[in-house]
Amino acid sequence: MKIISEVKSHDGRQLVIRHASSTTRCKMTFALFLPPGEGPFPVVWYLSGLTCSHANVMEKGEYRRIASELGVAIVCPDTSPRGNTIPDSTPDDWQFGQGAGFYIDATTPPYVQNYQMYSYVMKELPELLFAAYPLAPNRQGIFGHSMGGHGAMVLALRNPGVFKSCSAFAPITQPSTAAWSQRAFREYLGSDESSWREWDSVCLIEDGARIDSLLVDQGDADAFLNDGLRPQLLAKACADAHINLTLRMQPGYDHSYYFISSFMPEHIRWHAARLAA
Amino acid sequence: MKIISEVKSHDGRQLVIRHASSTTRCKMTFALFLPPGEGPFPVVWYLSGLTCSHANVMEKGEYRRIASELGVAIVCPDTSPRGNTIPDSTPDDWQFGQGAGFYIDATTPPYVQNYQMYSYVMKELPELLFAAYPLAPNRQGIFGHSMGGHGAMVLALRNPGVFKSCSAFAPITQPSTAAWSQRAFREYLGSDESSWREWDSVCLIEDGARIDSLLVDQGDADAFLNDGLRPQLLAKACADAHINLTLRMQPGYDHSYYFISSFMPEHIRWHAARLAA
Repeated sequence: MKIISEVKSHDGRQLVIRHASSTTRCKMTFALFLPPGEGPFPVVWYLSGLTCSHANVMEKGEYRRIASELGVAIVCPDTSPRGNTIPDSTPDDWQFGQGAGFYIDATTPPYVQNYQMYSYVMKELPELLFAAYPLAPNRQGIFGHSMGGHGAMVLALRNPGVFKSCSAFAPITQPSTAAWSQRAFREYLGSDESSWREWDSVCLIEDGARIDSLLVDQGDADAFLNDGLRPQLLAKACADAHINLTLRMQPGYDHSYYFISSFMPEHIRWHAARLAA
Repeated sequence: MKIISEVKSHDGRQLVIRHASSTTRCKMTFALFLPPGEGPFPVVWYLSGLTCSHANVMEKGEYRRIASELGVAIVCPDTSPRGNTIPDSTPDDWQFGQGAGFYIDATTPPYVQNYQMYSYVMKELPELLFAAYPLAPNRQGIFGHSMGGHGAMVLALRNPGVFKSCSAFAPITQPSTAAWSQRAFREYLGSDESSWREWDSVCLIEDGARIDSLLVDQGDADAFLNDGLRPQLLAKACADAHINLTLRMQPGYDHSYYFISSFMPEHIRWHAARLAA
């Protein structure tokens, strides 16, 4: 791992780190914020949305003040493998390919070679991080935005012993049936739609996966609310499964980082309360 | 004035507004954050540094949470006139020309036609804003970063009856003698260096200008500390003039928005306390 940049901010350290990934078979870049102190720190994973890299939330998410105050580390992975050798969609297509990995392990060529973002975030990156930095593997939470909200819920539902807290900003709740994500699922996983269910929060809950509780904030002025995001599907699945969902419809808020940053402190408090030593 | 974008954030409204300026003779864009409520709100002007537009601090400055909490409006003007018809330096020169107006009224051709940023920020923009939005003209503060810290101090020193509070992040304290700003002063103001003093904080103080108090944060890991910024010059001028300067050298901090955002809450609190009704 090579530190690309390190900047002091809010009394902590904002790092950007690059490394060669054996999982995605390319160089990967991620952001790591370490609060002041010696650690080991609880760590919250932030998964970003379509088109984003590690940098967007690092610059615009406004997580450092509250993470520093509560002593929480924040890791922000990239959203896909990157580079000229990585299979991609057309440059104007932002719903699939680079910047749109969907936190899935692809099973179909040519994507199977590199688009292994689930294994990258669940296995390779934690192993590297826990070996190198003072982070507590038994105190992990996960959250994210939009495609990354989907990713956070999927990772938490599939690994409830790993993640002790989960939340999401405007998540894609059922990507296997949403118009803007169905194509990615088909490209990465093939045409057998039954295989898509294990990468879909609502389907995972319907099929028996459970987490204790879940915080979701959703702007009611979000342009993607009714076709891409559909929080009502998540609400029904959680109600049927007796999952304690706190779904807050936030009046007037859209899908942007102006929305994310507004509720970032409450989300980090949510995680910190559940990751207390 | 035309609203280019309006987004709800931290319970307030983040606006981006464009208008034709008679002062700079081009279209100008600025950001305006309005906290929740009816107003009239105290207003704090944020002047940005070299290379920046209105957008950098709007995206990375993290001012909305605390401005919303304290009920303060924030205005972020651009740093120069803009456009193909505006005289400029070479594209790789970021210390002069577009993005580097230095909040000066230029007196020499060809810059005199458009580089009237002092008059734009002091006269034209306030007139437009106070006519259109619920802002309190008798409760104005001003702050800024680097070139904008210079600008904030110059505007406050020249107009102590207008601005009731002033602060700066890593300001250029004596631009008329700093290597990276001398050229801009020469281009905008001509070779008579005596005319430069009225646009230079330290010189203005030496020549009798006064403000009640001043808060300055300066990172000690700032790469520009010793040649461009030189807070010791400001410290001496303020001491000699009995201006109450709070100069805080912040260990480990650099010149970036990671530094600015770290101390943004304390600066906005500084202003709000002095702008209370």
